[in-house]
Amino acid sequence: MTAGRLIGVGLGPGDPELVTRKAARIIAAAPVVAYPAPLGGASFARAIAADLISDQAEEIRIEIPMDVARFPAQAVYDRAATTLADRLDGGVDVVVLCEGDPLFYGSFMYLMSRLDGPYEVEVVPGVTSITACAAACRWPLSARNEALDVVPATLSHGALADRIAGADNLAILKAGRHLPKVRQALASADLVGRSVYVSHATLPDRHVCALADAPETGPYFSMVLVRKGGDPWLS
Amino acid sequence: MTAGRLIGVGLGPGDPELVTRKAARIIAAAPVVAYPAPLGGASFARAIAADLISDQAEEIRIEIPMDVARFPAQAVYDRAATTLADRLDGGVDVVVLCEGDPLFYGSFMYLMSRLDGPYEVEVVPGVTSITACAAACRWPLSARNEALDVVPATLSHGALADRIAGADNLAILKAGRHLPKVRQALASADLVGRSVYVSHATLPDRHVCALADAPETGPYFSMVLVRKGGDPWLS
Repeated sequence: MTAGRLIGVGLGPGDPELVTRKAARIIAAAPVVAYPAPLGGASFARAIAADLISDQAEEIRIEIPMDVARFPAQAVYDRAATTLADRLDGGVDVVVLCEGDPLFYGSFMYLMSRLDGPYEVEVVPGVTSITACAAACRWPLSARNEALDVVPATLSHGALADRIAGADNLAILKAGRHLPKVRQALASADLVGRSVYVSHATLPDRHVCALADAPETGPYFSMVLVRKGGDPWLS
Repeated sequence: MTAGRLIGVGLGPGDPELVTRKAARIIAAAPVVAYPAPLGGASFARAIAADLISDQAEEIRIEIPMDVARFPAQAVYDRAATTLADRLDGGVDVVVLCEGDPLFYGSFMYLMSRLDGPYEVEVVPGVTSITACAAACRWPLSARNEALDVVPATLSHGALADRIAGADNLAILKAGRHLPKVRQALASADLVGRSVYVSHATLPDRHVCALADAPETGPYFSMVLVRKGGDPWLS
């Protein structure tokens, strides 16, 4: 029997309409659909794709302890990979639903590292939170010869300040509870006036404002976009 | 009469199936569809969306001289904005087709800068070439606390070397004819073995290989992905 394929499918930033046609087709046809979920909680990935999953599909929740040490999480991926391998061995394709894009700060890579090789793996790219946030505030991310630094707000203040110093434009991800640190680092570089804050870019509770007007802290899915240079797209 | 809305729609990296459901819906309903095209040549953006454009839609080609000075290009955008404003004044929505994402190295920002304010503007984000290239070679772009530097290969050798020195992971865009410079800069940093080359990631003539095996130069739509660190997603 030919083994099934593992397919990591990017769902985009949250709005179900931002799922690609390819992702929609693959999810609708999937006999097995796996997705991450917090312990005992609702899966954001599943919610994005809810209208696409077949009633006949087997659903596999991969419950991931959030904000805990790396080693328990790795044990979770070990167990999940074993479960998915069982279905793949049975000749069935397994689709893994991934918020945003599977290979951009996603957990799919931990399953891929365990199953690629023994099994065929395909990845369907998705719209990332970065372009979704830029669209929400009509903010050019990068033009011409500019670079764009994508930086997680989880870095130390010093590392963040170094990144800010060397950048043209920045997307500072996972701002959330790190927002005071981000704001301070940008204030030191006199860049607060060149920064915007976006949370839940494509969801009903979207919040877009100048960084100066942003809340003290934000949700996990929040971001600060910074343009250091002038406005080259204006001329 | 209420003026029409300008809608910049990201089409993704080339495969028509990587158009989002939202983009597909908006294009199919558009009374006016505008898109960039090389002088006298076929439009890549139009080709991606060809199956979606209504027979009844007015199509407006925005012919952009490639690889020329900035000022003629700006005159082109001035003229195109005037044409689109005419349709918007008539109360008709205008959809602008954008390869990839409208605000990520896209020309849509030059139309947006001329029309946002006088007219309502909406942006629909798209899948970028970066995640498409990563998917094509199953290459994790960034994990956990890593940063991702997005850098155009058009930078000078020195600027490129500085960027490479300061990065965790890189996506070096528009590699094309700059590939010898990119290869040399990565060789100086002993990173050729940690780099992959991808061109036309989602198209039939896709080429994916280790950078060491890449051609001397590539097409405009080619990219080098670099991971400096270990393989954190493996553990």
